[in-house]
Amino acid sequence: MSLPSIPHIEDLHDAARAAALRHKIDRKTVPQGALGRMAALAQQLGLILGTTAPRLAQPQLLVFAADHGIAARGVSAYPSDVTWQMVGNFLAGGALVSVLARQHGIAMQVVDCGVRHDFDPAPGLIVRKIAPGTQDSASGPAMTAAQCAQALQNGADIVRALPGNALLLGEMGIGNTSAAALLVARLADIDVAEVTGAGTGLDAAGIARKTAVLRQALAANAGASEPLAVLAALGGFEIATMVGSVLQAAAERRVIVVDGFIASAAVLVASKLAPHVLQRCVFAHRSDERGHARLLELLGARPLIDVALRVGEGSGAALAWPLLVSACTILNEMASFESAGVSDKS
Amino acid sequence: MSLPSIPHIEDLHDAARAAALRHKIDRKTVPQGALGRMAALAQQLGLILGTTAPRLAQPQLLVFAADHGIAARGVSAYPSDVTWQMVGNFLAGGALVSVLARQHGIAMQVVDCGVRHDFDPAPGLIVRKIAPGTQDSASGPAMTAAQCAQALQNGADIVRALPGNALLLGEMGIGNTSAAALLVARLADIDVAEVTGAGTGLDAAGIARKTAVLRQALAANAGASEPLAVLAALGGFEIATMVGSVLQAAAERRVIVVDGFIASAAVLVASKLAPHVLQRCVFAHRSDERGHARLLELLGARPLIDVALRVGEGSGAALAWPLLVSACTILNEMASFESAGVSDKS
Repeated sequence: MSLPSIPHIEDLHDAARAAALRHKIDRKTVPQGALGRMAALAQQLGLILGTTAPRLAQPQLLVFAADHGIAARGVSAYPSDVTWQMVGNFLAGGALVSVLARQHGIAMQVVDCGVRHDFDPAPGLIVRKIAPGTQDSASGPAMTAAQCAQALQNGADIVRALPGNALLLGEMGIGNTSAAALLVARLADIDVAEVTGAGTGLDAAGIARKTAVLRQALAANAGASEPLAVLAALGGFEIATMVGSVLQAAAERRVIVVDGFIASAAVLVASKLAPHVLQRCVFAHRSDERGHARLLELLGARPLIDVALRVGEGSGAALAWPLLVSACTILNEMASFESAGVSDKS
Repeated sequence: MSLPSIPHIEDLHDAARAAALRHKIDRKTVPQGALGRMAALAQQLGLILGTTAPRLAQPQLLVFAADHGIAARGVSAYPSDVTWQMVGNFLAGGALVSVLARQHGIAMQVVDCGVRHDFDPAPGLIVRKIAPGTQDSASGPAMTAAQCAQALQNGADIVRALPGNALLLGEMGIGNTSAAALLVARLADIDVAEVTGAGTGLDAAGIARKTAVLRQALAANAGASEPLAVLAALGGFEIATMVGSVLQAAAERRVIVVDGFIASAAVLVASKLAPHVLQRCVFAHRSDERGHARLLELLGARPLIDVALRVGEGSGAALAWPLLVSACTILNEMASFESAGVSDKS
């Protein structure tokens, strides 16, 4: 199988449109600068959607799910079976992301990218299974280059078929904070301990064991340094599929709402392949998972919400969604000093 | 006129209900503790509304508006006329708080507590005008004790007539960051410079002039030390009316959603009169107005959102509102490990 083709992601920079957005925002009936980061968000959404009157339409949340060979080494507080059980919970509407997506009218689908379980067909379930879980990266590559390419392709294909102009990223996979930590450590060239956290709830001794396993995985895949090779060696099927979706969504100029640590790690991989991806990303929240704050820093990202969630699933993205809608509402519905007849600063 | 009667605000502490809420939250299908501050918010809403299945109903946002005598001393970057002009903007639906309230289905009304303008009757406008602006507190008390008592009574009466179980606090009044800074400085016994900021957009020299005027106001009202006396001497009609509304809402066990610096100052006054008020308060956001972070610290409050808004109006409260709805949704709609058939931590 040949290397996957990475779509061209254009630079969104457009001085005229940026100036038009800035002017429109500055005439809104609040003191200059008083909209704070909502102004920057409105500006970003306008640039992504290519208009001074952006409207978010039919938001789509994808929960990318898969299992991880490395989970067998006890890097998680929960058994791998929780991955498929939670997929059932997502589809039944009882998970955190399910109830938040329902609250906000966000369409949600689950993508089986490689869960160690055979699902019956179900509404809301997209099966693009590469294999029932990755190999154990502590003893070699998590997946083959061909599997990684297929996952990227799957992610792109899924997004291509989605309606709307916004993609919210979610995931589920026991062991995937390990995979994400490995990707960040290798791609950002930092000590893996800096981004290794409690995941689903390890104690300090558990985190120490997890860190040791991750060091072993980095050693076992010492040769991987290019982004795609790193993704194959250390990633997971749900992360690779998500990277494909991010690249495709960015190429289509969709707004990408990034959830927590794992989604941000996927964005880091995508940004190594196509840096302008980041222009399309809105970072929803700062997760309580240890590595996330560090990763946001590396990405130069400042998230909208900080309520110490540590759930994944896309729940932080769904929780922050109304703020994106508000940013558009500000641009589209607020009066200007002129239209409202309000005196400007003297 | 006699001293206003402060309603009894009971202690919400209820060990049995708190334990029931905690248990319900802990069985939700996320790792233990992973809901972060959303769990604390859900718990608080359950305690306020007295149930393990809280539902927010018919949220009401009040924008308390008034003018300030001290504004004539150039403590604001905008002229006092902006107060009445913005009232028109609120009622016409073009202000920031208007569009956010509409986005979230929050009913909004404006209370003329003492604007220097005669309004024609309009839907959504409640006229409870004490006087067309306060006196200049830099040369004596801003209002009389009788005016202050009347404002408190007005605030209570307005809330008593409102439907629903949640009150969002907003305000408008050129000069009211000055009044709020004065109240906080005196009631918390801190240097007024610590809580004196740009308001609608003063530069450094402007803030220095504002600080000097505020020191003069504190000196001119050196005798005021009891909360009600301080409120009358240094406050504003919109702030005093808001204090009355906060006390009444707390007595009725409504959820009180606190906006920025001025609303938080009103809550500080109310909490000095009845400390358990704070149990009912959800602090929506950290405003970019200089004094707000310090005031939140004094109140022991940690806000939900931090996007550097500096608008007032109740806009931060409206922006954060969906998070409160999410907290209830989590309690009411999420599955438990048992109901979803998901394995708990081993």
